Amino acid sequence: MQYRFSENVDALQPSAIREILKFTGMPGVISLAAGNPAPEAFPVEQIRQISARLMEKDPILALQYNITEGYPRLRELLKARMADQKCFHSAVDDLITTSGAQQGNELSCKVLLNRGDTMFCESPSFIGSLNAFRSYGVNLVGVTMEEDGMDLAELEEKIKANPNPRLVYVIPNFQNPTGRVMSLAKRKGLYDLACRYDLVILEDNPYGDLRFSGEPLPSIKSMDTEHRVIYTGTFSKILAPGLRVGYTSAPKEIISKMTVCKQVSDVHTNIWAQIVCAEFLETTDMESYLDGLRAVYRRKCSLMADGIRQHFSKRIRWEMPEGGLFLWCTLPEECDVPAFCTQAVEQYRIAVVPGSAFLVDESETSPCIRLNYSTPSDEQIVQGIEILGRMTREILD
Amino acid sequence: MQYRFSENVDALQPSAIREILKFTGMPGVISLAAGNPAPEAFPVEQIRQISARLMEKDPILALQYNITEGYPRLRELLKARMADQKCFHSAVDDLITTSGAQQGNELSCKVLLNRGDTMFCESPSFIGSLNAFRSYGVNLVGVTMEEDGMDLAELEEKIKANPNPRLVYVIPNFQNPTGRVMSLAKRKGLYDLACRYDLVILEDNPYGDLRFSGEPLPSIKSMDTEHRVIYTGTFSKILAPGLRVGYTSAPKEIISKMTVCKQVSDVHTNIWAQIVCAEFLETTDMESYLDGLRAVYRRKCSLMADGIRQHFSKRIRWEMPEGGLFLWCTLPEECDVPAFCTQAVEQYRIAVVPGSAFLVDESETSPCIRLNYSTPSDEQIVQGIEILGRMTREILD
Repeated sequence: MQYRFSENVDALQPSAIREILKFTGMPGVISLAAGNPAPEAFPVEQIRQISARLMEKDPILALQYNITEGYPRLRELLKARMADQKCFHSAVDDLITTSGAQQGNELSCKVLLNRGDTMFCESPSFIGSLNAFRSYGVNLVGVTMEEDGMDLAELEEKIKANPNPRLVYVIPNFQNPTGRVMSLAKRKGLYDLACRYDLVILEDNPYGDLRFSGEPLPSIKSMDTEHRVIYTGTFSKILAPGLRVGYTSAPKEIISKMTVCKQVSDVHTNIWAQIVCAEFLETTDMESYLDGLRAVYRRKCSLMADGIRQHFSKRIRWEMPEGGLFLWCTLPEECDVPAFCTQAVEQYRIAVVPGSAFLVDESETSPCIRLNYSTPSDEQIVQGIEILGRMTREILD
Repeated sequence: MQYRFSENVDALQPSAIREILKFTGMPGVISLAAGNPAPEAFPVEQIRQISARLMEKDPILALQYNITEGYPRLRELLKARMADQKCFHSAVDDLITTSGAQQGNELSCKVLLNRGDTMFCESPSFIGSLNAFRSYGVNLVGVTMEEDGMDLAELEEKIKANPNPRLVYVIPNFQNPTGRVMSLAKRKGLYDLACRYDLVILEDNPYGDLRFSGEPLPSIKSMDTEHRVIYTGTFSKILAPGLRVGYTSAPKEIISKMTVCKQVSDVHTNIWAQIVCAEFLETTDMESYLDGLRAVYRRKCSLMADGIRQHFSKRIRWEMPEGGLFLWCTLPEECDVPAFCTQAVEQYRIAVVPGSAFLVDESETSPCIRLNYSTPSDEQIVQGIEILGRMTREILD
């Protein structure tokens, strides 16, 4: 038969990153293209012990159906943790555990927007979220990402110019792909705009705990006097992504709708993983644990930065991140960046992602590339940056 | 702020079953209302050993991101298993692992139907799937469920009468809630209708392995010469539902679209659970293992049937299932079944679900109740049926 697909899904294209990532499994290729957290930082021994204890003492709990809202003990621990961070206001908010923060971001769009309604995002931004929004046929409008976050004047213009503006999606800390942090002034300014134009803000914070320099800034959720912020978090970057456990804190009415949608999507999140996360939170001094993680990411980022300073063409501008997984480089305007990335992987066996892959309109061009320092080993970082640097000098200098 | 929800989601109501299930956690209540598999049948020791071995030998594999399509070894094992059952045709089909069969059913609707397109289902049917379809704003049309499956004449009429008929959802084996099996003639007849009217069939088979009497019938997927059947299966009923591992076998083009949608929903299914399922399949003689499961379900079903014969009013008709989790009873027409169920739980502390909860139009009435024999213990089945039987005699005789 001839298949007809839904209009929303038919319009979805496999992302350009997937094309680059195809190369990363090839022998000899050093991948600076992925977005995986550092495997050497996974708390393997603790997870092993928690899992063994659970399967010994309470296997039926770990194997039977559970409730859609999430494993109750994990939810309580997360509510307390989020309340400490001013990301959960018990009088108005509820919290649901999700199958990764990805699910929280997807369901936020599903419960709030009709096909054709407008939502805004930083451009460039995390392509997985953008495609989630696109899969509901929304009018996704990108707003230029400046060094201190979204261009708010441009946002306001686009709010006025688009039909049914409803939602703004931002990653305020160590944004993917730019690694940038939204300034306090812009956080406040964005919240004010949301109040003025009656928008909901979707604040995605997968990397916030991985700040390895500078001072933390208050979340937008912490300013949420009008109850218009949805906050998504995850264990993927601080424990392990294979668990697929995230969480969403939002006003009760929104969580209630998200719960109905999650129930019809996957019933509930794998319960073994939820219990592992709960036990980990309960038995771990999280601040000292996170300090250990931050040290790993600080070191790997410095290693990459040192290599860039030493080897890259001076015509490449790059930004030193204060946390997260990514380092953002800007090439000279005349450079054909997609061709640069193709040559890097085909000729030099170094995989990096062109900035255009993260634009809302992928047909636009970007002078940038995203480098990841969390997934490669130290040796791969050193070697990869040296080879990439040689290439940049050959091409640009 | 005043929240506005999407039209699709705003129309979703929490199911009536949830209201009944609220009572089931109360002390002293015997629940025959759930749909959980029998916990005493979970292969706890095997899962414990597999999990321990995995966390010892390959923890990073179990904790890092994996690919959306599913853990490669599990997919290969499932393709082989499905090919043996004629539910996978390697020349045209592909297979994806999902977060429960629920996700396979949801994504089938998402990739194929636009808002307002028509899909058909048995009425009554599994409310979780119906709500998944509703969450995409489709025109969901119920077709009367007869003792040998959907009324095909009625289906054909409704195909002609509704706009953009696209998909038919059926549970051919031990259907939820009726426990009924679709006859071979109707399987063939449904497939012929699908070919004639260019529909896709979504064949949901969560209970097929739990046949404890009678002879297996060929799946609709096994008749799929025109490549128009999507087949969803799950480990929830044969291993453990807390794992949240299911799978979908369908033509490659459809799986490709489902993969894009799964990626933006939860990236991939919990990888520990996928590896547990793969190792279980590899290290277990599945036929003898399933015979053991079937013995458990046969015994529990017989125990309930014996109690019904002994205690229930003879005015209640009931159907002896050949497999699955549910036993379907029909009360005399004059009986107010929702009031009966409310009285059963409030006065007699026995929770059962009224048939109306499974109708496409919940405002319609049904003379039926669904009894579950897999979740309660033997003692609870015996005691629950005795008390419920006394109630039926008091009210009906």
